[in-house]
Amino acid sequence: MERISITSTRRVDLIDITDQIQDALSRQKTQDGICCLFCPHTTAGLTINENADPAVRKDITTSLSKLIPPDAGYTHSEGNSDSHIKASLFGPSLSVILEGGKLMLGTWQGIYFCENDGPRSRQVWITIIGK
Amino acid sequence: MERISITSTRRVDLIDITDQIQDALSRQKTQDGICCLFCPHTTAGLTINENADPAVRKDITTSLSKLIPPDAGYTHSEGNSDSHIKASLFGPSLSVILEGGKLMLGTWQGIYFCENDGPRSRQVWITIIGK
Amino acid sequence: MERISITSTRRVDLIDITDQIQDALSRQKTQDGICCLFCPHTTAGLTINENADPAVRKDITTSLSKLIPPDAGYTHSEGNSDSHIKASLFGPSLSVILEGGKLMLGTWQGIYFCENDGPRSRQVWITIIGK
Repeated sequence: MERISITSTRRVDLIDITDQIQDALSRQKTQDGICCLFCPHTTAGLTINENADPAVRKDITTSLSKLIPPDAGYTHSEGNSDSHIKASLFGPSLSVILEGGKLMLGTWQGIYFCENDGPRSRQVWITIIGK
Repeated sequence: MERISITSTRRVDLIDITDQIQDALSRQKTQDGICCLFCPHTTAGLTINENADPAVRKDITTSLSKLIPPDAGYTHSEGNSDSHIKASLFGPSLSVILEGGKLMLGTWQGIYFCENDGPRSRQVWITIIGK
Repeated sequence: MERISITSTRRVDLIDITDQIQDALSRQKTQDGICCLFCPHTTAGLTINENADPAVRKDITTSLSKLIPPDAGYTHSEGNSDSHIKASLFGPSLSVILEGGKLMLGTWQGIYFCENDGPRSRQVWITIIGK
Protein backbone atom coordinates (compact mmCIF):
# COMPACT_ATOMS: atom_id res chain seq x y z
CA MET A 1 0.00 0.00 0.00
CA GLU A 2 0.91 3.64 -0.38
CA ARG A 3 0.90 6.08 2.50
CA ILE A 4 0.42 9.81 2.33
CA SER A 5 1.23 12.16 5.20
CA ILE A 6 -0.93 15.01 6.42
CA THR A 7 -0.07 17.65 8.98
CA SER A 8 -3.12 19.28 10.49
CA THR A 9 -2.82 22.74 12.01
CA ARG A 10 -6.15 23.07 13.87
CA ARG A 11 -8.14 20.92 16.28
CA VAL A 12 -10.95 20.46 13.75
CA ASP A 13 -10.44 20.78 10.01
CA LEU A 14 -11.33 19.29 6.65
CA ILE A 15 -8.11 19.04 4.63
CA ASP A 16 -8.21 18.52 0.85
CA ILE A 17 -6.08 15.45 0.02
CA THR A 18 -7.35 14.87 -3.54
CA ASP A 19 -4.09 15.91 -5.25
CA GLN A 20 -1.92 13.93 -2.82
CA ILE A 21 -3.97 10.81 -3.53
CA GLN A 22 -3.91 11.35 -7.28
CA ASP A 23 -0.09 11.77 -7.07
CA ALA A 24 0.25 8.49 -5.16
CA LEU A 25 -1.88 6.75 -7.80
CA SER A 26 0.37 7.97 -10.60
CA ARG A 27 3.17 5.81 -9.12
CA GLN A 28 1.04 2.66 -9.55
CA LYS A 29 0.75 0.33 -12.55
CA THR A 30 -2.93 -0.46 -12.14
CA GLN A 31 -5.01 2.00 -14.13
CA ASP A 32 -8.55 0.71 -13.79
CA GLY A 33 -10.37 -0.53 -10.73
CA ILE A 34 -11.01 1.01 -7.34
CA CYS A 35 -8.89 3.11 -5.06
CA CYS A 36 -9.43 2.15 -1.41
CA LEU A 37 -8.62 4.87 1.12
CA PHE A 38 -8.20 4.08 4.80
CA CYS A 39 -7.70 6.35 7.81
CA PRO A 40 -5.67 4.50 10.49
CA HIS A 41 -6.58 6.96 13.27
CA THR A 42 -9.45 6.78 15.75
CA THR A 43 -10.04 10.53 16.05
CA ALA A 44 -10.10 11.32 12.32
CA GLY A 45 -11.98 10.14 9.25
CA LEU A 46 -12.47 10.57 5.52
CA THR A 47 -15.19 12.24 3.51
CA ILE A 48 -15.95 13.59 0.04
CA ASN A 49 -17.64 16.95 -0.34
CA GLU A 50 -17.58 20.26 -2.24
CA ASN A 51 -14.19 21.56 -3.36
CA ALA A 52 -15.34 25.02 -4.51
CA ASP A 53 -16.61 27.23 -1.67
CA PRO A 54 -14.58 26.73 1.58
CA ALA A 55 -17.70 27.89 3.48
CA VAL A 56 -19.18 24.43 2.91
CA ARG A 57 -16.35 22.84 4.88
CA LYS A 58 -16.77 25.42 7.64
CA ASP A 59 -20.50 24.71 7.83
CA ILE A 60 -19.84 20.95 8.03
CA THR A 61 -17.32 21.26 10.89
CA THR A 62 -19.36 23.90 12.77
CA SER A 63 -22.58 21.93 12.48
CA LEU A 64 -20.98 18.68 13.63
CA SER A 65 -19.32 20.45 16.57
CA LYS A 66 -22.74 21.73 17.65
CA LEU A 67 -24.21 18.21 17.50
CA ILE A 68 -21.16 16.62 19.16
CA PRO A 69 -19.74 19.30 21.47
CA PRO A 70 -16.18 18.96 22.83
CA ASP A 71 -17.44 18.88 26.42
CA ALA A 72 -20.65 16.97 27.11
CA GLY A 73 -19.94 14.97 30.26
CA TYR A 74 -18.05 12.23 28.45
CA THR A 75 -16.47 9.40 30.47
CA HIS A 76 -13.27 8.86 28.41
CA SER A 77 -10.43 10.41 30.41
CA GLU A 78 -8.43 11.77 27.48
CA GLY A 79 -11.05 14.47 26.87
CA ASN A 80 -11.42 13.85 23.15
CA SER A 81 -14.55 11.72 22.99
CA ASP A 82 -16.12 14.21 20.56
CA SER A 83 -13.28 13.41 18.13
CA HIS A 84 -13.89 9.66 18.39
CA ILE A 85 -17.64 10.08 17.86
CA LYS A 86 -17.11 12.26 14.78
CA ALA A 87 -14.61 9.69 13.43
CA SER A 88 -17.35 7.06 13.42
CA LEU A 89 -19.86 9.42 11.79
CA PHE A 90 -17.52 10.30 8.90
CA GLY A 91 -16.22 6.73 8.67
CA PRO A 92 -12.66 5.39 8.17
CA SER A 93 -12.83 4.02 4.61
CA LEU A 94 -13.82 5.23 1.14
CA SER A 95 -13.78 3.59 -2.28
CA VAL A 96 -13.37 5.70 -5.40
CA ILE A 97 -13.55 4.34 -8.95
CA LEU A 98 -10.29 4.53 -10.92
CA GLU A 99 -10.26 4.81 -14.73
CA GLY A 100 -7.17 5.36 -16.87
CA GLY A 101 -5.19 6.08 -13.72
CA LYS A 102 -7.55 8.88 -12.67
CA LEU A 103 -9.85 9.15 -9.66
CA MET A 104 -13.41 9.35 -10.95
CA LEU A 105 -14.95 12.17 -8.93
CA GLY A 106 -17.95 14.39 -9.62
CA THR A 107 -17.33 17.92 -10.89
CA TRP A 108 -17.53 19.55 -7.48
CA GLN A 109 -16.05 16.74 -5.38
CA GLY A 110 -12.82 16.72 -3.41
CA ILE A 111 -11.55 14.10 -0.96
CA TYR A 112 -11.10 15.39 2.59
CA PHE A 113 -9.18 14.23 5.64
CA CYS A 114 -11.46 14.95 8.61
CA GLU A 115 -9.22 16.08 11.47
CA ASN A 116 -11.21 16.00 14.70
CA ASP A 117 -8.39 16.17 17.27
CA GLY A 118 -5.47 18.10 15.81
CA PRO A 119 -3.04 19.51 15.33
CA ARG A 120 -1.32 16.19 14.62
CA SER A 121 0.77 14.30 12.06
CA ARG A 122 -1.54 11.90 10.26
CA GLN A 123 -1.51 9.30 7.49
CA VAL A 124 -3.93 7.98 4.92
CA TRP A 125 -3.34 4.51 3.50
CA ILE A 126 -4.13 3.78 -0.14
CA THR A 127 -4.42 0.57 -2.07
CA ILE A 128 -5.59 -0.03 -5.63
CA ILE A 129 -7.54 -3.10 -6.65
CA GLY A 130 -7.54 -3.71 -10.38
CA LYS A 131 -10.63 -4.59 -12.34
CA MET B 1 -18.03 1.82 -15.16
CA GLU B 2 -21.81 1.76 -15.47
CA ARG B 3 -23.99 4.78 -14.73
CA ILE B 4 -27.59 4.76 -13.62
CA SER B 5 -29.81 7.85 -13.70
CA ILE B 6 -32.15 8.96 -10.95
CA THR B 7 -34.70 11.77 -11.08
CA SER B 8 -35.66 13.00 -7.65
CA THR B 9 -39.01 14.71 -7.16
CA ARG B 10 -38.64 16.20 -3.65
CA ARG B 11 -35.99 18.24 -1.83
CA VAL B 12 -35.27 15.36 0.58
CA ASP B 13 -35.98 11.74 -0.26
CA LEU B 14 -34.62 8.21 0.00
CA ILE B 15 -35.05 6.58 -3.41
CA ASP B 16 -34.83 2.80 -3.82
CA ILE B 17 -32.24 2.04 -6.51
CA THR B 18 -31.74 -1.67 -5.76
CA ASP B 19 -33.43 -2.94 -8.94
CA GLN B 20 -31.65 -0.38 -11.15
CA ILE B 21 -28.28 -1.50 -9.77
CA GLN B 22 -29.14 -5.19 -10.14
CA ASP B 23 -30.18 -4.51 -13.77
CA ALA B 24 -26.86 -2.77 -14.48
CA LEU B 25 -24.99 -5.74 -12.98
CA SER B 26 -26.79 -8.18 -15.27
CA ARG B 27 -25.04 -6.50 -18.23
CA GLN B 28 -21.61 -7.38 -16.74
CA LYS B 29 -19.50 -10.51 -17.19
CA THR B 30 -18.07 -10.59 -13.68
CA GLN B 31 -20.32 -12.67 -11.43
CA ASP B 32 -18.42 -12.81 -8.15
CA GLY B 33 -16.67 -10.06 -6.25
CA ILE B 34 -17.80 -6.69 -4.98
CA CYS B 35 -20.05 -4.05 -6.45
CA CYS B 36 -18.72 -0.55 -5.69
CA LEU B 37 -21.32 2.20 -5.74
CA PHE B 38 -20.34 5.85 -5.91
CA CYS B 39 -22.41 9.04 -5.68
CA PRO B 40 -20.71 11.82 -7.71
CA HIS B 41 -22.77 14.62 -6.08
CA THR B 42 -21.91 16.73 -3.03
CA THR B 43 -25.48 17.16 -1.78
CA ALA B 44 -26.54 13.52 -1.99
CA GLY B 45 -25.30 10.18 -0.68
CA LEU B 46 -25.95 6.45 -0.52
CA THR B 47 -27.29 4.23 2.22
CA ILE B 48 -28.76 0.78 2.81
CA ASN B 49 -31.81 0.39 5.02
CA GLU B 50 -35.23 -1.28 5.35
CA ASN B 51 -37.16 -1.91 2.12
CA ALA B 52 -40.45 -2.97 3.71
CA ASP B 53 -42.19 -0.18 5.66
CA PRO B 54 -41.79 3.25 3.94
CA ALA B 55 -42.26 4.83 7.40
CA VAL B 56 -38.66 3.88 8.18
CA ARG B 57 -37.40 6.09 5.35
CA LYS B 58 -39.66 8.91 6.49
CA ASP B 59 -38.34 8.62 10.05
CA ILE B 60 -34.74 8.68 8.76
CA THR B 61 -35.22 11.82 6.67
CA THR B 62 -37.34 13.60 9.31
CA SER B 63 -34.89 12.82 12.10
CA LEU B 64 -31.86 13.97 10.09
CA SER B 65 -33.64 17.18 9.09
CA LYS B 66 -34.25 17.92 12.78
CA LEU B 67 -30.56 17.37 13.58
CA ILE B 68 -29.37 19.28 10.49
CA PRO B 69 -32.07 21.90 9.82
CA PRO B 70 -32.21 23.66 6.41
CA ASP B 71 -31.65 27.05 8.02
CA ALA B 72 -29.19 27.26 10.90
CA GLY B 73 -27.07 30.33 10.22
CA TYR B 74 -24.84 28.60 7.68
CA THR B 75 -22.18 30.62 5.84
CA HIS B 76 -22.34 28.93 2.39
CA SER B 77 -24.17 31.35 0.11
CA GLU B 78 -26.08 28.74 -1.92
CA GLY B 79 -28.34 28.02 1.04
CA ASN B 80 -27.96 24.24 0.90
CA SER B 81 -25.36 23.59 3.58
CA ASP B 82 -27.73 21.15 5.29
CA SER B 83 -27.62 19.03 2.11
CA HIS B 84 -23.81 18.99 2.09
CA ILE B 85 -23.63 18.03 5.77
CA LYS B 86 -26.11 15.18 5.30
CA ALA B 87 -24.10 13.99 2.27
CA SER B 88 -21.06 13.49 4.49
CA LEU B 89 -23.10 11.72 7.20
CA PHE B 90 -24.58 9.19 4.75
CA GLY B 91 -21.31 8.89 2.81
CA PRO B 92 -20.61 8.75 -0.95
CA SER B 93 -19.52 5.12 -1.41
CA LEU B 94 -20.82 1.64 -0.59
CA SER B 95 -19.47 -1.84 -1.29
CA VAL B 96 -21.85 -4.77 -1.65
CA ILE B 97 -20.77 -8.40 -2.09
CA LEU B 98 -21.68 -9.95 -5.46
CA GLU B 99 -22.24 -13.71 -5.86
CA GLY B 100 -23.46 -15.44 -9.01
CA GLY B 101 -24.25 -12.03 -10.49
CA LYS B 102 -26.53 -11.10 -7.58
CA LEU B 103 -26.17 -8.39 -4.96
CA MET B 104 -25.87 -10.07 -1.57
CA LEU B 105 -28.23 -8.07 0.65
CA GLY B 106 -29.97 -8.98 3.89
CA THR B 107 -33.65 -9.96 3.74
CA TRP B 108 -34.96 -6.49 4.59
CA GLN B 109 -32.27 -4.41 2.90
CA GLY B 110 -32.64 -2.07 -0.07
CA ILE B 111 -30.06 0.35 -1.50
CA TYR B 112 -31.14 3.99 -1.35
CA PHE B 113 -30.07 7.17 -3.09
CA CYS B 114 -30.18 9.89 -0.42
CA GLU B 115 -31.43 13.05 -2.10
CA ASN B 116 -30.78 16.01 0.17
CA ASP B 117 -31.21 18.90 -2.29
CA GLY B 118 -33.72 17.91 -4.97
CA PRO B 119 -35.54 17.81 -7.17
CA ARG B 120 -32.61 17.10 -9.51
CA SER B 121 -31.28 14.74 -12.15
CA ARG B 122 -28.70 12.51 -10.50
CA GLN B 123 -26.36 9.61 -11.27
CA VAL B 124 -24.86 6.70 -9.40
CA TRP B 125 -21.65 5.16 -10.72
CA ILE B 126 -21.10 1.42 -10.46
CA THR B 127 -18.04 -0.72 -10.95
CA ILE B 128 -17.54 -4.41 -10.28
CA ILE B 129 -14.29 -5.82 -9.02
CA GLY B 130 -13.99 -9.57 -9.52
CA LYS B 131 -12.76 -11.94 -6.85
CA MET C 1 -18.04 -15.24 1.21
CA GLU C 2 -17.40 -15.99 4.85
CA ARG C 3 -19.92 -15.33 7.59
CA ILE C 4 -19.22 -14.66 11.23
CA SER C 5 -21.89 -14.83 13.93
CA ILE C 6 -22.38 -12.32 16.70
CA THR C 7 -24.73 -12.57 19.67
CA SER C 8 -25.51 -9.21 21.19
CA THR C 9 -26.63 -9.04 24.82
CA ARG C 10 -27.86 -5.43 25.09
CA ARG C 11 -30.15 -3.17 23.05
CA VAL C 12 -27.27 -0.87 22.11
CA ASP C 13 -23.65 -2.00 22.08
CA LEU C 14 -20.38 -1.79 20.15
CA ILE C 15 -18.97 -5.32 19.94
CA ASP C 16 -15.32 -5.92 19.04
CA ILE C 17 -15.23 -8.33 16.07
CA THR C 18 -11.60 -7.75 15.02
CA ASP C 19 -10.33 -11.19 16.11
CA GLN C 20 -13.31 -13.01 14.58
CA ILE C 21 -12.66 -11.31 11.25
CA GLN C 22 -8.92 -12.00 11.39
CA ASP C 23 -9.71 -15.68 12.13
CA ALA C 24 -12.03 -15.87 9.12
CA LEU C 25 -9.30 -14.35 6.93
CA SER C 26 -6.79 -16.99 8.02
CA ARG C 27 -8.98 -19.60 6.28
CA GLN C 28 -8.56 -17.77 2.92
CA LYS C 29 -5.86 -18.15 0.28
CA THR C 30 -5.73 -14.49 -0.75
CA GLN C 31 -3.15 -12.67 1.32
CA ASP C 32 -3.05 -9.19 -0.21
CA GLY C 33 -5.91 -6.94 -1.25
CA ILE C 34 -8.92 -5.62 0.58
CA CYS C 35 -11.27 -7.18 3.08
CA CYS C 36 -14.86 -6.06 2.48
CA LEU C 37 -17.13 -6.27 5.49
CA PHE C 38 -20.90 -6.09 5.14
CA CYS C 39 -23.65 -5.93 7.75
CA PRO C 40 -26.83 -7.56 6.35
CA HIS C 41 -29.12 -6.04 9.02
CA THR C 42 -31.11 -2.80 8.89
CA THR C 43 -30.84 -1.95 12.58
CA ALA C 44 -27.09 -2.49 12.96
CA GLY C 45 -23.92 -1.24 11.32
CA LEU C 46 -20.14 -1.39 11.32
CA THR C 47 -17.51 1.03 12.55
CA ILE C 48 -13.84 1.25 13.45
CA ASN C 49 -12.76 3.05 16.61
CA GLU C 50 -10.53 2.87 19.69
CA ASN C 51 -9.85 -0.59 21.12
CA ALA C 52 -8.12 0.54 24.33
CA ASP C 53 -10.43 2.42 26.72
CA PRO C 54 -13.99 0.98 26.74
CA ALA C 55 -15.20 4.44 27.84
CA VAL C 56 -14.81 5.58 24.23
CA ARG C 57 -17.42 3.06 23.09
CA LYS C 58 -19.73 4.08 25.92
CA ASP C 59 -19.38 7.75 24.94
CA ILE C 60 -20.14 6.91 21.29
CA THR C 61 -23.31 4.96 22.08
CA THR C 62 -24.49 7.44 24.76
CA SER C 63 -23.92 10.43 22.53
CA LEU C 64 -25.71 8.87 19.54
CA SER C 65 -28.66 7.85 21.74
CA LYS C 66 -28.98 11.48 22.86
CA LEU C 67 -29.00 12.68 19.24
CA ILE C 68 -31.32 9.88 18.08
CA PRO C 69 -33.49 9.04 21.09
CA PRO C 70 -35.46 5.74 21.18
CA ASP C 71 -38.77 7.60 21.39
CA ALA C 72 -39.15 10.77 19.33
CA GLY C 73 -42.58 10.51 17.72
CA TYR C 74 -41.44 8.18 14.95
CA THR C 75 -44.01 6.79 12.49
CA HIS C 76 -42.60 3.26 11.99
CA SER C 77 -44.85 0.93 13.97
CA GLU C 78 -42.16 -1.47 15.16
CA GLY C 79 -40.81 1.15 17.57
CA ASN C 80 -37.18 0.84 16.53
CA SER C 81 -36.75 3.77 14.15
CA ASP C 82 -33.82 5.04 16.23
CA SER C 83 -32.01 1.77 15.41
CA HIS C 84 -32.61 2.19 11.67
CA ILE C 85 -31.40 5.81 11.73
CA LYS C 86 -28.22 4.88 13.62
CA ALA C 87 -27.61 2.04 11.12
CA SER C 88 -27.48 4.59 8.29
CA LEU C 89 -25.18 6.91 10.27
CA PHE C 90 -22.63 4.16 11.01
CA GLY C 91 -23.05 2.62 7.55
CA PRO C 92 -23.31 -1.03 6.45
CA SER C 93 -19.97 -1.58 4.71
CA LEU C 94 -16.26 -1.13 5.46
CA SER C 95 -13.11 -1.87 3.45
CA VAL C 96 -9.87 -2.68 5.25
CA ILE C 97 -6.53 -3.20 3.51
CA LEU C 98 -5.11 -6.75 3.76
CA GLU C 99 -1.35 -7.42 3.61
CA GLY C 100 0.29 -10.80 4.18
CA GLY C 101 -3.05 -12.16 5.37
CA LYS C 102 -3.35 -9.49 8.09
CA LEU C 103 -5.86 -6.68 8.50
CA MET C 104 -3.99 -3.39 8.27
CA LEU C 105 -5.38 -1.36 11.15
CA GLY C 106 -3.96 1.60 13.04
CA THR C 107 -2.39 0.97 16.47
CA TRP C 108 -5.52 1.87 18.43
CA GLN C 109 -8.14 0.62 15.98
CA GLY C 110 -10.60 -2.23 16.43
CA ILE C 111 -13.53 -3.20 14.18
CA TYR C 112 -16.91 -2.96 15.89
CA PHE C 113 -20.35 -4.38 15.20
CA CYS C 114 -22.79 -1.58 16.06
CA GLU C 115 -25.82 -3.21 17.66
CA ASN C 116 -28.67 -0.71 17.77
CA ASP C 117 -31.63 -3.03 18.43
CA GLY C 118 -30.46 -6.06 20.40
CA PRO C 119 -30.24 -8.43 21.95
CA ARG C 120 -30.21 -10.44 18.72
CA SER C 121 -28.29 -13.04 16.73
CA ARG C 122 -26.42 -11.25 13.98
CA GLN C 123 -24.02 -11.90 11.12
CA VAL C 124 -21.26 -10.04 9.35
CA TRP C 125 -20.39 -11.06 5.80
CA ILE C 126 -16.78 -10.96 4.64
CA THR C 127 -15.21 -11.21 1.22
CA ILE C 128 -11.62 -10.70 0.16
CA ILE C 129 -10.66 -9.15 -3.14
CA GLY C 130 -7.07 -9.85 -4.14
CA LYS C 131 -4.76 -7.20 -5.49
